[in-house]
Amino acid sequence: MIVALAGGVGGAKMAQGLQAALPPGDLTVVVNTADDFDLYGLRISPDLDTVMYTLAGIADPVNGWGVAGDTRNTLAAIARYGQEPWFSLGDQDFATHILRTERLAAGTPLSAITRELSGALGIPTRIVPMTDDRVATLIDTPAGRLEFQDYFVGRRQSDDVLGVVFTGIESAKAHPDALAAIREAAAVVIAPSNPIVSVGPILATPGMRESLDDATGPVVAVSPIVGGRALKGPAAEMLATLGHEVSVLGVARLYDGLIDGFVIDDLDRDLAPALELMGLRVLVTATVMGGEDDRRRLATEVLDFAGSLTLERTATR
Amino acid sequence: MIVALAGGVGGAKMAQGLQAALPPGDLTVVVNTADDFDLYGLRISPDLDTVMYTLAGIADPVNGWGVAGDTRNTLAAIARYGQEPWFSLGDQDFATHILRTERLAAGTPLSAITRELSGALGIPTRIVPMTDDRVATLIDTPAGRLEFQDYFVGRRQSDDVLGVVFTGIESAKAHPDALAAIREAAAVVIAPSNPIVSVGPILATPGMRESLDDATGPVVAVSPIVGGRALKGPAAEMLATLGHEVSVLGVARLYDGLIDGFVIDDLDRDLAPALELMGLRVLVTATVMGGEDDRRRLATEVLDFAGSLTLERTATR
Repeated sequence: MIVALAGGVGGAKMAQGLQAALPPGDLTVVVNTADDFDLYGLRISPDLDTVMYTLAGIADPVNGWGVAGDTRNTLAAIARYGQEPWFSLGDQDFATHILRTERLAAGTPLSAITRELSGALGIPTRIVPMTDDRVATLIDTPAGRLEFQDYFVGRRQSDDVLGVVFTGIESAKAHPDALAAIREAAAVVIAPSNPIVSVGPILATPGMRESLDDATGPVVAVSPIVGGRALKGPAAEMLATLGHEVSVLGVARLYDGLIDGFVIDDLDRDLAPALELMGLRVLVTATVMGGEDDRRRLATEVLDFAGSLTLERTATR
Repeated sequence: MIVALAGGVGGAKMAQGLQAALPPGDLTVVVNTADDFDLYGLRISPDLDTVMYTLAGIADPVNGWGVAGDTRNTLAAIARYGQEPWFSLGDQDFATHILRTERLAAGTPLSAITRELSGALGIPTRIVPMTDDRVATLIDTPAGRLEFQDYFVGRRQSDDVLGVVFTGIESAKAHPDALAAIREAAAVVIAPSNPIVSVGPILATPGMRESLDDATGPVVAVSPIVGGRALKGPAAEMLATLGHEVSVLGVARLYDGLIDGFVIDDLDRDLAPALELMGLRVLVTATVMGGEDDRRRLATEVLDFAGSLTLERTATR
């Protein structure tokens, strides 16, 4: 069993590579839910959906999120009723949100709903929300405190991020299946998702960090920063304004004490010695994932790397 | 001001004709809401929507319900999740249900939501649900008691109707705007909708009948039965199994004491004397509505007919 911790698009690509590299059923993906929000009375879980669509092979190959070839007729009709369509939602995508909202209202936990939906799509991988409790990321900016999707989609990440708050996180409980999977996993892979707002909430969920500390297998992270830039999204700007170094070193420091190995891109080869000085094992390879073959290739390398760390981790315990 | 009482497709056509024949804003349509139901956690108001789409000029011209040219991608995705798509819902149509459900959950009355949605579509006519309270039609059949849409759509009206129950009707309050409009209207037109399950619930809503009795203007009905058959839907079979004559006479008896005039089709000309013996004024004309011009033509004739009854009604009071 392998566990991946994932946010949205980058995490989904990594998860797809791992799913392709592993026997069916051998992967559990623990997904950030702090981006979840309500829109038009529907519960949207952007990262869960991106992971689910990607693992089902129906994700939009250009955007990385949403369903391939989806239409936008519901959203156009919502706009006709006078609502600004600031958050892009496809018609097939609406089906996910509608069914999720219906089941949540009936008292079904998000994790059970996710299992049902992903099962119906034929996904062999277990997708587990980091928690069944509500957690919401808020972004402190010079313009004030913003809801995450307002910052991320509505204002296109144009505000400096001065602080990040996960409301509800103190009273949230990490999903027990996530905790058990992490503890027993042959390896835990932290996907190249935003370390602050995607991996950050997962790690901050009570119980998660302890179970990573107790994990039998090694914990390896794949850097979302390549050559001092983020593969996608505002990770670089966010690291900078929050006072972190915008480099693989900055990311490694965020994961200090948590990971055994770090996977960085060929572009960052020169920084490998500094990472090793931090006590990390380092794999240098091509980390920018293209299509499915490339995702599988990287996943295989990451799994081999993790395998090489297994004995070491056992020895240091 | 003219008031129409309407169910779904037939009522919507009549309302569209009246809207075309009258100055903008001079029509109020009071609509049956006893067919409303919840599906996928969304509130569906079939008759309100059919009237709204028709008056906005965006109704599907073939079905009469739904939005013209609408796609079914949300429903297809819901089916992919394993849900049987027994009730056809278009993608644009979903927008209506999503926004309505969101606003209802926020405590907004259905009437206010209907005003907002129809206003956004540029409809000059006031569309008023018969009540803001929940009323649900149940159909007693040899197979047991069925929810209306289960009988109507799910089982395609294949069961004999042995009884009809409007749950919640005793405690429902007719919408005050409907009551006021009816009382003050120059004429009230009962559209050629199903007298049992479309007009029936409107008339059964507490307050409605009294306000029709108190109406200043004449009340005229357009027969939904033509030549012993229903223009659309199960009205004929329903009249028969409930022990009513399947003819304009059977419909007239259901409206006995309520209407001043009755509009029947040329095909039923022979029954005009019998209707007049019941004390009704009768207009015989082509009542089967085709396109918009035809709807307007019939509406103009109905309004002229109602106008001719105005003095008589005043005289009998």
